[in-house]
Amino acid sequence: MAEAAPSPAAHHLVVVGAGFAGLQLVRDLKGAGLRITLIDQRNHHLFQPLLYQVATTILATSEIAWPIRRLFREREDVTTLLAEVTGVDAGGRQVLLSDSSTIAYDTLVLATGARHSYFGRDEWEALAPGLKTLEDATTIRRRMLLAFEQAERESDPAAQQALLTFAVIGAGPTGVELAGIIAELAKEVLWQEFRHIDTRKARILLIEAGPRVLAAFPASLSDYAKAALDRLGVEVLLGRPVSDIRTDGVTIGEEFVGCRTVVWAAGVAASPAAAWLGTPADRAGRATVDANLNAPGRPEIFVIGDTAAVPTADGQPVPGIAPAAKQQGAHVGRVIRARLAGQPAPPPFRYRHQGNLATIGKSAAVVDFGWLQLRGWIAWWFWGIAHIFFLIGARSRVAVAWSWFWTFISGQHSARLITQGRKAPDPKP
Amino acid sequence: MAEAAPSPAAHHLVVVGAGFAGLQLVRDLKGAGLRITLIDQRNHHLFQPLLYQVATTILATSEIAWPIRRLFREREDVTTLLAEVTGVDAGGRQVLLSDSSTIAYDTLVLATGARHSYFGRDEWEALAPGLKTLEDATTIRRRMLLAFEQAERESDPAAQQALLTFAVIGAGPTGVELAGIIAELAKEVLWQEFRHIDTRKARILLIEAGPRVLAAFPASLSDYAKAALDRLGVEVLLGRPVSDIRTDGVTIGEEFVGCRTVVWAAGVAASPAAAWLGTPADRAGRATVDANLNAPGRPEIFVIGDTAAVPTADGQPVPGIAPAAKQQGAHVGRVIRARLAGQPAPPPFRYRHQGNLATIGKSAAVVDFGWLQLRGWIAWWFWGIAHIFFLIGARSRVAVAWSWFWTFISGQHSARLITQGRKAPDPKP
Repeated sequence: MAEAAPSPAAHHLVVVGAGFAGLQLVRDLKGAGLRITLIDQRNHHLFQPLLYQVATTILATSEIAWPIRRLFREREDVTTLLAEVTGVDAGGRQVLLSDSSTIAYDTLVLATGARHSYFGRDEWEALAPGLKTLEDATTIRRRMLLAFEQAERESDPAAQQALLTFAVIGAGPTGVELAGIIAELAKEVLWQEFRHIDTRKARILLIEAGPRVLAAFPASLSDYAKAALDRLGVEVLLGRPVSDIRTDGVTIGEEFVGCRTVVWAAGVAASPAAAWLGTPADRAGRATVDANLNAPGRPEIFVIGDTAAVPTADGQPVPGIAPAAKQQGAHVGRVIRARLAGQPAPPPFRYRHQGNLATIGKSAAVVDFGWLQLRGWIAWWFWGIAHIFFLIGARSRVAVAWSWFWTFISGQHSARLITQGRKAPDPKP
Repeated sequence: MAEAAPSPAAHHLVVVGAGFAGLQLVRDLKGAGLRITLIDQRNHHLFQPLLYQVATTILATSEIAWPIRRLFREREDVTTLLAEVTGVDAGGRQVLLSDSSTIAYDTLVLATGARHSYFGRDEWEALAPGLKTLEDATTIRRRMLLAFEQAERESDPAAQQALLTFAVIGAGPTGVELAGIIAELAKEVLWQEFRHIDTRKARILLIEAGPRVLAAFPASLSDYAKAALDRLGVEVLLGRPVSDIRTDGVTIGEEFVGCRTVVWAAGVAASPAAAWLGTPADRAGRATVDANLNAPGRPEIFVIGDTAAVPTADGQPVPGIAPAAKQQGAHVGRVIRARLAGQPAPPPFRYRHQGNLATIGKSAAVVDFGWLQLRGWIAWWFWGIAHIFFLIGARSRVAVAWSWFWTFISGQHSARLITQGRKAPDPKP
């Protein structure tokens, strides 16, 4: 059933960002009688936890992305806007857009997420793309596949070796997952298809400045993951910060390694919500918020998800993962409903950690619930079923399940496309 | 079973282009004892008959494209090369590549296909993209979806109407198929999702200089297709050549129509195979060939597929469709086998026309076998089953069948992504 449109005089909530936090909030406010405007600079919500599988040729782009306005097509109270927010006029209670127009709000929620952080070396971004958008994923996919193609035609051994060396910087879940699948691609999928190179001799480097992989997991699971990566042939370099990235290679500490494909999975920085508001931020740029996730002194402005610095009970920041973002969206939904109803505010936000998951290639995974730790194929099945469950809609669940089933039984990857290497910009009238 | 690699001294066949013609040839030469090098500037073979469904958000890119080298991974006699051919040194029997390297051949087959032709108005290309590559399809998809998004935010009624006007130029099968699905998208899929515009009021213009749609079909099927387009709300403009295309609209005869999305389905021009060889070509640039599909006076060079001008028995050129390309590839395979075996040449190439197919939206289609004509839902089912059958591999068949099934039962399109609007080029070492 379509929901009736709210009156034009209804309280106007503007939500910026349709990631996990923003989406949860708008869903939870169904029937609350608000006028909601949901702004995103993309037309799609992206299931980021599986983005690395697009980058590594297992899934198609459309299997993990959904048009935002389709998700709310029956919600007459929700207006979706494809637009880029450039700032907030908190005094005037309006949001500024890149085309110089403005949108007035009664309540504002900033859920604008995070981008990569190159720790002050922004020139590395073009050389070592991170993995946040569909374009990031197809860029990494294109560069990785092109490196194999160019290696096949390269006669100089050193240049060929550099083309067959893949560096993943940062050994958190994304780095571990990327390195594992790149190794499988090189060593199991591609080797039979080339005539002049042996892709099984490709080097996959997973470079980490810290002392172990998956630092957020218990040490025993880190050790298991490291051993699983070793078995896949990934060279795990621990305690080795990257000091330089160039077009022809990376410098790890003092050692230069020729390498033509580099992926950045090392650090993220919050989007500029705190700067827009002129409020304090932590070192990663995340906006400080109070117990209700309000910006300081601004009860009509909330900041949630990866762009907010939300402390847990033990003082640690809430991790930048999908369940944390969803919980924050749900909390702000409760606060807004209580205020509209003139009821007392709900208890302060409290993050409930549900667990950490990561996969290593096609058959190993680690799951840490705190009270229970899983590894091996049982963790892998748990990981797979959980991710299928959290996808949106039957169409994507069947499509992703089919792609995984196919990869599992055939050993082939379905989405090995080199696309969008050069393009002209769209004309403007 | 993997095929044994041929001796380095074996006859070297170079095939340029892995479309339907080149692919069929290489497949048919399995076990012929040749050394085969298959060159394409893309890493994938593309199932072009369904490309319009990528442009119109029904199928994902990877559902209709397969890595070329995967198709021949068990053929040790086949080397796949991702490279751009820039010319042929017919005297020296070598192919020239864009990186200034060369590849020597004993026999050469040029199967390089066709691109759009703008009849001398090349400046129209940026304004009215055609539909030949995956990038073409995602460009059309992006511009079409962005037009709806911009219309939602546009306050000027004339500008809004221009954003909601979509022009398809050329009413052959591609134009008819595009216009039909764009109409369904606007009138059935999207209307519930926008708050400020009624997408059902979008104008979809199908502009044709000739007197009827689907000129290659019998007049009765053209009439049926026209009526089906009328029912979908497509405005079919016949006998109306386009005289100008600008960023803000198209001029049809003398009449200017404000319009921000234009798709070109009007004409194709052969790739420059004839120019590379310095041999005669017809008006569309297609190289003249003899009864064996050899370039004139060059028995070691064949030209096949859309880049060749092959006459049928009644003097008409062979149409630029997949079955014709495959038949030519198969014929050259027979000629090469006969020559290698020292046997007499097979009978001259003779095109066997199997029929023409086109769909109009989700439930109408026309099929013309010559001896039998089908229309309506029976033609639509025939069309769908035939296309599923001709896809490569179980993975794509299931994926495409699922996408179609989903579109059919839900009325939703799965691949409504706006991607790749702006990008930086990959760095070069």
